[in-house]
Amino acid sequence: MKIVIVGGVAGGASAAARARRLSEESEIVLVERGPDVSFANCGLPYYLGGTIVDRQKLLVVTPERLEARMRLDVRVRSSVESIDRQAKTVRIHDLESGRIYDEAYDKLILAPGAAPLRPSIPGIDSPGVFTLRNLQDTDRIKAMLDTNIQQAVVVGAGFIGLELVENLLQLGIDTTIVELQDQVLPPFDKEMSTPLAELLTRRGVKLLLGESADRFETTETGVVVHTKSGRALPAQLVALGIGVRPENKLAVDAGLEVGPRGGIQVNDSLQTSDPDIYAVGDAIEVQDFVSGEPTQIPLAGPANRQGRIAADNVFGREVHYRGTQGTAILGLFDQTAAMTGASEKSLQRSGIAFRKIYVHPANHAGYYPGAEQMTLKLLFDPESGRILGAQGIGGAGVDKRIDVLAIAIQAGMTVFDLEEVELAYAPQYGSAKDPVNMAGFVAAGLLRGDHPQIDVATLMEQSPEERPLLLDVRTAEEYAAGHFPDAVNISIDELRSRLDELPTDRRIATYCQVGQRGYLATRVLLQAGYDVVNVSGGYKTFRLFNPEKDSAGN
Amino acid sequence: MKIVIVGGVAGGASAAARARRLSEESEIVLVERGPDVSFANCGLPYYLGGTIVDRQKLLVVTPERLEARMRLDVRVRSSVESIDRQAKTVRIHDLESGRIYDEAYDKLILAPGAAPLRPSIPGIDSPGVFTLRNLQDTDRIKAMLDTNIQQAVVVGAGFIGLELVENLLQLGIDTTIVELQDQVLPPFDKEMSTPLAELLTRRGVKLLLGESADRFETTETGVVVHTKSGRALPAQLVALGIGVRPENKLAVDAGLEVGPRGGIQVNDSLQTSDPDIYAVGDAIEVQDFVSGEPTQIPLAGPANRQGRIAADNVFGREVHYRGTQGTAILGLFDQTAAMTGASEKSLQRSGIAFRKIYVHPANHAGYYPGAEQMTLKLLFDPESGRILGAQGIGGAGVDKRIDVLAIAIQAGMTVFDLEEVELAYAPQYGSAKDPVNMAGFVAAGLLRGDHPQIDVATLMEQSPEERPLLLDVRTAEEYAAGHFPDAVNISIDELRSRLDELPTDRRIATYCQVGQRGYLATRVLLQAGYDVVNVSGGYKTFRLFNPEKDSAGN
Repeated sequence: MKIVIVGGVAGGASAAARARRLSEESEIVLVERGPDVSFANCGLPYYLGGTIVDRQKLLVVTPERLEARMRLDVRVRSSVESIDRQAKTVRIHDLESGRIYDEAYDKLILAPGAAPLRPSIPGIDSPGVFTLRNLQDTDRIKAMLDTNIQQAVVVGAGFIGLELVENLLQLGIDTTIVELQDQVLPPFDKEMSTPLAELLTRRGVKLLLGESADRFETTETGVVVHTKSGRALPAQLVALGIGVRPENKLAVDAGLEVGPRGGIQVNDSLQTSDPDIYAVGDAIEVQDFVSGEPTQIPLAGPANRQGRIAADNVFGREVHYRGTQGTAILGLFDQTAAMTGASEKSLQRSGIAFRKIYVHPANHAGYYPGAEQMTLKLLFDPESGRILGAQGIGGAGVDKRIDVLAIAIQAGMTVFDLEEVELAYAPQYGSAKDPVNMAGFVAAGLLRGDHPQIDVATLMEQSPEERPLLLDVRTAEEYAAGHFPDAVNISIDELRSRLDELPTDRRIATYCQVGQRGYLATRVLLQAGYDVVNVSGGYKTFRLFNPEKDSAGN
Repeated sequence: MKIVIVGGVAGGASAAARARRLSEESEIVLVERGPDVSFANCGLPYYLGGTIVDRQKLLVVTPERLEARMRLDVRVRSSVESIDRQAKTVRIHDLESGRIYDEAYDKLILAPGAAPLRPSIPGIDSPGVFTLRNLQDTDRIKAMLDTNIQQAVVVGAGFIGLELVENLLQLGIDTTIVELQDQVLPPFDKEMSTPLAELLTRRGVKLLLGESADRFETTETGVVVHTKSGRALPAQLVALGIGVRPENKLAVDAGLEVGPRGGIQVNDSLQTSDPDIYAVGDAIEVQDFVSGEPTQIPLAGPANRQGRIAADNVFGREVHYRGTQGTAILGLFDQTAAMTGASEKSLQRSGIAFRKIYVHPANHAGYYPGAEQMTLKLLFDPESGRILGAQGIGGAGVDKRIDVLAIAIQAGMTVFDLEEVELAYAPQYGSAKDPVNMAGFVAAGLLRGDHPQIDVATLMEQSPEERPLLLDVRTAEEYAAGHFPDAVNISIDELRSRLDELPTDRRIATYCQVGQRGYLATRVLLQAGYDVVNVSGGYKTFRLFNPEKDSAGN
């Protein structure tokens, strides 16, 4: 068996290693356009910012090591130009020597990755405009940073964009973000990104949302980014982080099927429309684990697993890829934003029915010093309670809860299961009722009808006439420090004795700071015969939707 | 409906709060022997050590707050002396006034907890010998600590014992541990506790394993602990942390069924043998989630959930308790030890077949600074691959992986599922192949026969004749720094060219540092026709079993 693998980073390198483990006799040729294989893609921003000091650390495995240990035929600086599916050969261009030659394969695995988008904006090819994909890009940006630049513009506030911003700030560079969407971190639901936007602003970043670059002008001192709304942003470095597109040219030219957004199409054995050709990683279209719809999700973890699975299938092992959940995480200074499964936006796009709740628990017992608060948003099926997606934002412990929920989604668990999960509790690590349990309680209470809830977004969309009476059950002091517009205040501890102050002919929406006292108030009022709902996640959630509001909530 | 709840801490307080949420009309009487309800049990050691400074923080909820907010009839310093099941009354002794009176109930919920064991060792009632259960115990120990004592002996190296030790060291007190078992943290398998024992020794603790207290002698300066082996350990403070026994007297006197180890028996609705009496928390016998066997697992998380479920059932909601997994965690200085599900010991006791593997991954990408290593042990069904239990020991990130595995166990997942789980990866948080995936790969490879393994314990039990040839595939430098007794060394990169040096008529056991190179060596040799196994977890696992060995492995 002779296997040719195109692309030597995450998916390709994993496929090659797995293939060798499965077969000592096979000939395995790993062809990589760049000079490096298996480098630390996700570490590049941190090398630029100086957190990772040694460039060598980014080279996870060298070609020499792969050859010696895995007996792979590694050909770096070699570009595969075309595939002859009839002859079962690939044409390889040795970029070093210029030699062009054909290499036969029995099975071909495509792992070409995805390239940063560079839309045809005037001036985008200016020397000061960078994208970040590989070590060579990194070296170029690093060289620019070493000239002690003052100002940078990052176009795109996705994962890579924000990681770059953190690292530019680390270097003391005055940084502006230009983002087309009206939020940072667009894969997240907007309200869940609010704390990140506030954090960036606090750190001195100029955040231009709903804005885009119209033109890049090269000047004597660098680049000026001219925006759609007419701003002129001078910078010495412009970094584009506006997304990637699958490197599908090879596949398209060879007549392999690609999806509407360009991803190479594969079945769940990761086989393309040609049974002798497999494809993995950022270049492929995958099935969304939650919606079942085709999608493209460029992530290192799935790419690695796909490489492994493709190699298994090459050797006749029937291993099926289960789809991609899109579990992703961002560290931004001391904050963590993480998500798994579907977002509210993506469920709406797919037309999938859902309910949602918000909780704002602490990462560990409040009585132990250093507890940090987080916000979790949980999306679930209105009938079965199956968990569809989760997002978390906050300090320590967000990564843990999202990983726990990632498994719960993979296992097909429901919000009723989350009520019962038994997680590790000691005061430094969690709570007897873990944030995951709390999310389960609130969501299950909603579905069981014990805990009717309204979400802030729905409330805000309602006209003053249709809006319920807002009942703030916090203390008078909390109320005075900021509350929902038009809310009345009766503290929870007085509620039972002041029921007669509440209208019986109008729906009431109770709320407190995070939802817990509001829940009790809802139970009290419900049993007293009132038409009542609790505002999910309380005033804290209101603030996520209304970050610009002043402290009186106006 | 009138509900009387006996015990106002975790399970009792949860039951009371849930009952009130379900029913505004019910009369709910919460009877607690001590002066406090719902205090932070798990925080007591950290208050003693000064990490938690303010005693008030330990009072999670006060009786006054419960009365005001939940409209509960809270009676502290009141002891329930007996139950008249016929009359459906309890006899309450008001410890303040001395009054004794009967209180009727429709439903009774018992949440009396468990008391620290105080075996009848001579002198155990000396004023210097303490147990730690409640705030009053804590105050007494605190008063002793405030006299600036020099020496302490902690009897029992379980969770509470070790938490106490950490806090005593924090105060600069010379501390000795006396533990009957030959290991610390007996719920863990012995080898997994090795790093904790080493850590304690490094921190200056005198660790006496396989030792017990025979007699406590009161002296002018404190207590002398006389041990079985004849040691005399002078101390000003002796703390007992040797386990707890269910507070079952009330139940036994009332003729309710209790299990062989004293736990009050309940069905999965948490109903005792009297359908009008429920029981929750540390006092009950539960079903072990993995083995299905009856057991007693005193943990705060399960107690809280049981309280909720009992209240649900009181009000006719059919909610079933799923059993207890025993997910538990210990922080000891910068180390974390956590477990979920069955241990190897408990599987052996139950006669349940299992396989096991060890991995030693880093908590996050190695190229990002600050990665910390952990050891994970995974236990699983030899046929289906269903996960039976997991233990972790190491630095940051152990809690996350054990929580992820706790959910996987609850969901009935297999090691094959762990290969596919999609966890959040950015270099500060994890790896593209997360430790949980790695454990899945190694375990699934074992079950599929791709990756035959032998564990260190089995190897060490074998006689020199039956033992395989040990092949160390690390570098010569690594080999020289310490290796398995009698191992030969051929580095992995030379293995293929030196195959003829290996015997074809004898089984070979390859190993490396953590198991990865050994795995590749196993694949190479297997395909070359050798009878080969890999030592699961490599030399690092050997060291867990042989901590006292010198650096040459002798």
